[in-house]
Order: sequence, then C-alpha cells, then structure tokens
Amino acid sequence: MSNIFKVALAGLGTVGGGVVKLLLQHQEILLQRCFQKIELTDVADLNEARVKQLNIPESVRYYKDAAEMVEKTDADVVIELVGGANGIAYEICKKALQRKKSFVTANKAMIAHHGNELAKFAEEQGVFFGYEAAVAGGIPIIKSLREGLIGNNISEIYGILNGTCNYILTVMRETGRSFDKVLSDAQKLGYAEADPSFDIDGIDTAHKMCILGSLAFGIPIDLNALNVQGIRFITDADIAFAEELGFRIKLLGVGRRSQAGVSLNVYPCMIPQTAEIAHVDGVFNAVITEGDFVGHSMFVGRGAGECPTASAVVSDIADAALNRRLPLLGVPHQCIKSIPVIPLADREGEYYVRFQVQDKPGVVAEISKILGDKEVSIASMIQRGQSENGSVPLIMTFHSSKESAVCSALTEIERLECVLDKPCMIRIERL
Amino acid sequence: MSNIFKVALAGLGTVGGGVVKLLLQHQEILLQRCFQKIELTDVADLNEARVKQLNIPESVRYYKDAAEMVEKTDADVVIELVGGANGIAYEICKKALQRKKSFVTANKAMIAHHGNELAKFAEEQGVFFGYEAAVAGGIPIIKSLREGLIGNNISEIYGILNGTCNYILTVMRETGRSFDKVLSDAQKLGYAEADPSFDIDGIDTAHKMCILGSLAFGIPIDLNALNVQGIRFITDADIAFAEELGFRIKLLGVGRRSQAGVSLNVYPCMIPQTAEIAHVDGVFNAVITEGDFVGHSMFVGRGAGECPTASAVVSDIADAALNRRLPLLGVPHQCIKSIPVIPLADREGEYYVRFQVQDKPGVVAEISKILGDKEVSIASMIQRGQSENGSVPLIMTFHSSKESAVCSALTEIERLECVLDKPCMIRIERL
Repeated sequence: MSNIFKVALAGLGTVGGGVVKLLLQHQEILLQRCFQKIELTDVADLNEARVKQLNIPESVRYYKDAAEMVEKTDADVVIELVGGANGIAYEICKKALQRKKSFVTANKAMIAHHGNELAKFAEEQGVFFGYEAAVAGGIPIIKSLREGLIGNNISEIYGILNGTCNYILTVMRETGRSFDKVLSDAQKLGYAEADPSFDIDGIDTAHKMCILGSLAFGIPIDLNALNVQGIRFITDADIAFAEELGFRIKLLGVGRRSQAGVSLNVYPCMIPQTAEIAHVDGVFNAVITEGDFVGHSMFVGRGAGECPTASAVVSDIADAALNRRLPLLGVPHQCIKSIPVIPLADREGEYYVRFQVQDKPGVVAEISKILGDKEVSIASMIQRGQSENGSVPLIMTFHSSKESAVCSALTEIERLECVLDKPCMIRIERL
Repeated sequence: MSNIFKVALAGLGTVGGGVVKLLLQHQEILLQRCFQKIELTDVADLNEARVKQLNIPESVRYYKDAAEMVEKTDADVVIELVGGANGIAYEICKKALQRKKSFVTANKAMIAHHGNELAKFAEEQGVFFGYEAAVAGGIPIIKSLREGLIGNNISEIYGILNGTCNYILTVMRETGRSFDKVLSDAQKLGYAEADPSFDIDGIDTAHKMCILGSLAFGIPIDLNALNVQGIRFITDADIAFAEELGFRIKLLGVGRRSQAGVSLNVYPCMIPQTAEIAHVDGVFNAVITEGDFVGHSMFVGRGAGECPTASAVVSDIADAALNRRLPLLGVPHQCIKSIPVIPLADREGEYYVRFQVQDKPGVVAEISKILGDKEVSIASMIQRGQSENGSVPLIMTFHSSKESAVCSALTEIERLECVLDKPCMIRIERL
C-alpha cells in the first residue's frame, strides 16, 4: 500500500477546487480504497492566487500554462477542468494522450464535439480516459451504462440533464412567476450564468444527451443528429395548464432505439405527475434507462456543482489508479456503428398546444376542422371565458399523432384570422 | 478478441435460467464489451430436465452435483445461484475460492452470514468475488458504492429492498384491502412465497441492509446489530391514516453514521408523500445515499426477478473477465473497523401511533397525561366519531422524541382501561 499515484490538475475553478478539497480531505479513505496514495503533484491555472486560496501544499508544482504542465509532468493522470470544446482543453487532452498519461475530464462540450476521435486515439495509445463528471455530475451514469448494465441492450434513455433549467421550471411551478423573472433571480443566486443561453437553449443538455445516446446505443457521437429545443418559450400559463392537466414540464433529453433507427432529441415536455421523474426537482438531475434484461432503472443526483462533480472526477481518478480502463464509448471504436436517425417529424406521440385566439364563437370549429383534416385527434380541451382585450387562451391536447401532421396543422391554424399568435406546442411524453 | 472466458453455473432456477438466457442471447454484445467470448461451459442442477428447457447447448458439461462441478471445472468463473446461507452454496463458494476461481453469487443470505470471512478468504486467495445481484437486483448499487461514490464518506443509506413487501404495501394503498387478503393474492400471482415470512418479516431486507451498511460505513457485516421489524402488523387503517396525514408506508432499511456510532435498522415507516422514494411502488427497489461530496443520490430499479438479477450477475461476470477485482467490502479486510452501534431505543424521531380506545370522554386526557409525563409531545391527532361496539381508533403523531420515551409511554398507556388493544406504533422518517 505504499505506491503513489500522481495527479496533475489543470483548472482550479469551481470543480477543480472541489477536486483539490476532496483529494486533500479524503487521503486516508482513498488510500484504503485504491491501495495507493492518490497525491496531487501538479496544478495549472492562469490565476496563481487560487493555489493559496485552496490551501494547496507548497510541494505541489504550480504552472500558469496548463500545456506546459502536461508537457513536463511525471504524473500518472492528467485532469482537465478548464472547459470549452476546443482551445487549451483539447490541446492538453491530445498532449496527455500522446504522452500516454491517463486522462480525466469533466468537459462534455469537448466529448460531444471530439468524442469519436478521442475514443480512437485513447484506444490506440492504450490510455485510460475518464469523463464520468461530464454527464449528470454526481450520478455515476457512465459507469452504470458501461459496466453495471453491460449485459443489456438499451432501448431507451432519457433524463433531466441540466440543473439550471430544472431549477427554473421548478420555481416557475412553485411560485407561478414568469420565465424571465425566475431566470433573473436564478442568475442573482448563481444558479444561472450571466449568459444563460448555453443552459436554457438546451445546448448543455444536447452535449450530455449525445454522449449518453452513443453509450447506450453503440453509435458515434453526433451532436448534429439531435433536434434541440430550449425552455425560453415556456410561459407561466403553460406551467399552470400542465398542472391542471396532470402534467409537469421538464426539459428532457430523450433517446430511443427501434428497428427503424435511433432518435435523440432535447425538448421540454409534459410528463405525467405520477411519473417518478416528475418529482426530480430543483438542481437535481435524473437519468432513466430501459434495458432488455434489467428493465426500468432510474438514477438521481446532483447534476453539477463543486462537490458532486469532484466526486465524479475522483471516481475516474480511482479507476485510473486501479487500471480499470475501458473504451471511451464502452466498445472498441471499430465496433461503433451508425444507425439511421429517425427525424423528429416522424415522432408518434401526444401533444399539448396553447392557442391564443379571439374570444368569439366558431373559433374551436375552425381549428378542429383543420386538425381533423390532418387526422390529428383532440384528446382534451380547456377554454375559459376570461377575455383580455378579446383574446383568450385555448388549450388542446392531441391523441398520439405524427409530428409532421401536427406541425402542418399548426402552420395552417396560425394563418387563421381568429388565431392571434404563434401556437405554443409542447410534446407529451408518457414516461 | 479471440480469448474465451469460461463460465460454470451452479443452479438453473429462476435466476440461473435468466443468466443462461442472457449469455446465449447477448454473445455478440458481450464479446464487444468484454473483448473476449463469455462462454457457458459447465452447469449444475439437481434437475437435469432444466438443461433442455433452457436450450443449453450440448457442448456444455452438465453435473448433477454442483460441488463436483466446482471441483472439476476448468472454467474461469464459478456462478453460485443455488441460494441459502449455508449448505451447498457455502461449500461451492469455499471450494471455488480455494481453487482460485473468480466467484459470483446472488446469495445475500450467505454474504450476510459469512461475508466477513469470505472477504478475508477471497483477498488471501487473490480472487474476484462479485455479489452485485445479492442486493437490489437490477440496481448497480454495489458498484456505485464501491466505485462510483468511492470519494465519499457516506453518512446515510436507506432503501426499499424487498419487492414483495413493497408490492403488498402498494396494493394495500391502491385497493384499501387488508394485509392478509393482499398477501394471499400476491402468493397466487407469484409475487410472494408460499412461506412469506422471509420477506414480510423483514429478514430479506435485513440481509441486504447489513451488506449495504458494511459497504457504506466500512464496518463488518453484522446481521445481529440490526433491529428488524416486518410489515405483518400494518393494517389497512394505518395505510389510510398515513394517506390522510400526507405519508406513505414503506418497509425501509435505514443506516446512519454519526460521531456517536452507527445505526442499522429495518422497519416499516411513514415517509412524506413528497419524498421521491414514496413514489417507488410495486416490485421496484430504491436505494438512497448521502455522501459528503456527492450529496443526495437515488438509485431505482427492479429488485428481483429472472432478468434483472441476471443483468446484475452478468455485470459481475464482465468485471471478472476484465479482471476488475476489488475487496469484497470495498476496502481490504484489515481496514474494516467496528463502530459502536446506537440502540434503536436512542432513536430521536417522529412517531405515528394508532390506539384502539373506548368511545367515551376523558380518553385523550388520560393518554396525553402519560405522554406529557414522558416528555413526548403530540404533533397531530385524528379522532372520529364512528364507533364500533364502543371502540374507536385514535391516531396521534408525536414531535421528535426519543424512542425509549415513546415506548415507555406506550407501555403505560396500554395498561389503561380505556385502551382496548396494543397500540400500533410506526416510525416517521423525514427523507
């Protein structure tokens, strides 16, 4: 038990700070569980002051330049917590693999953009590559997919993968306040970035979802194959109507595989209040899988933050120390196979639509005529008398229909004189 | 990719059948994911007919005597799916380890009774020992605790670990029927054994809980340290009152570690309907952990059954094939340390009590006098006028109190003339 496993860490931001804290605080635990000392030997960050702030021992070598650190270090593993799909993160990743160093990252953007290439390169180099922290922070979902559920064909994987969106949607429901107001509060509280588009436009969820889809279905990582819709268009009215109809609105990544192909998408959707995932609120993430042997599984945990993400990074460090190497995407890169992508237009499912219409007779008749012509069948309808300037919301849900038919109907309906605004459509998922 | 990893399987019952099915059906998947062929080479079962029923290829050697198989086989791993804490299961386990074969089992009773000794022996022999299937079937909780959460101190672990009990409690709530009726139906449907005591008296949950407690807290497996209460005493009235009070009744294993020591117990308890775990119904299991870095995590999946358990067994086979050996309890056996056990009498928590009392004035006064004397404070009370033969239920919940005080009060209250039956006490857990 006297070996030392040396760790070089690039990036002393929030997550990097958490990793430092964990490594220093749990030395004894890690020694017992990894049968060797896990020792921080090198750190790199543009801001040297962080070294002191984090009480990093003086024996640890500091570099301003992460690339220089990776070039010079004799550590066993390089941890990349700089972030960004390209730039320095990608540079040090390639460099570490070239030097045959084990490599650990929390960088979902980099994996989403370069995962296929990195998988091949890491295999060729025979190097450990860990990215547990890249998806759903504290949830050991990469490990569960690659190892725990190894005996399964996964037919479905979906989840709440962005804590910021889940927090906003949760607070909107709890307070009845508007998207803009809740977002602005979330920014003040540090739950949303100053530029929130990466989160609220679904891009972060898409990065994670294309990684999960690849792991679950054995397909290449392909960010472009995903349709991505964020939550900006969700109004407090939609949240309230969802409640009334027995639903909750969640931003989900949804992946399905069938004989016909694979569909991977990110969109806010209405799920039954009785679904387990409907109760995953606030900053929590959840991933649900359907395996042919294991059946239905759910994993819930904190999706981000200093400490949960550090926990995931350290589980990768431990795997590296224990030499538990696996192909990045679960199978050797030559076994990864493309499957036809099913367009979202082919989705067969239920829909919720909120129309803003003139408060006058005949409106429902006009709208339902078009729906009927397109073979979209109405499942429920809510119409209230309270008119504002002669304009009222009209809520409909549709029985399972093809998305292309629904969209074509909505385009026609939007042109009606009695329809005052673009209809707001939200998919319903019976999870 | 041309290596062969040979599997010898003892026990072709429900789970054994599932493992055979998975190994035969997913040969291609397992070859890609384990980089070697996982091949069933030997099977043992008292009933030879099962070999045919399961379409086991003729090339597979059949043994009537599992011990003989383990003695003779040249397989790389021995899978024990015979069951039972002792007898043949224990015998072939020891024999396999002696022969330095990797060993995989779904046998929680054997681990609960002999885990410490087997941990030591497996380490001494330098042999892989997998038991993912022993706890919570399809949930990869052993892997998550030993690997995914490796960087955490776990302060709390609890869960729904017995599908039979969860099914019975779920159906009682959904139908309002009595325990006896629901149990008898569950037996007809195959969800409960002819002799159900192992499940409904909490023994099965206790086996699993002492394993989880050991893994989470680094303590020896000690079945005797657990207080175990089953669900036989839960009435349809309690289920209904729980609903009314905003609770659900679940049989939980509950483990906590604090400065003072560790508590590990199994009892039915009332949990808020808003708790995530309250929505884990039917035959599903759930495990919840609190780690100092990762925070709150929840894992949900099928707890038993042919296929989910087979999925867990096969994940162990894959780990064995990939030579991913870990100490049975996460740390080397010499690092396992006893911690003082906190008696259940010291529990500080809330309580629900149902008294059956005479329908006459002064009863509440008499009861509350005793509670007050013992410093047990009433949080809520339900009393209805509907008397049956002059007897009515009186429901009380208590603010956080010490269990010894509650028990002492209940013993005194039971002696009151106005109290017609033994009070029914159910712990409340704010999860």
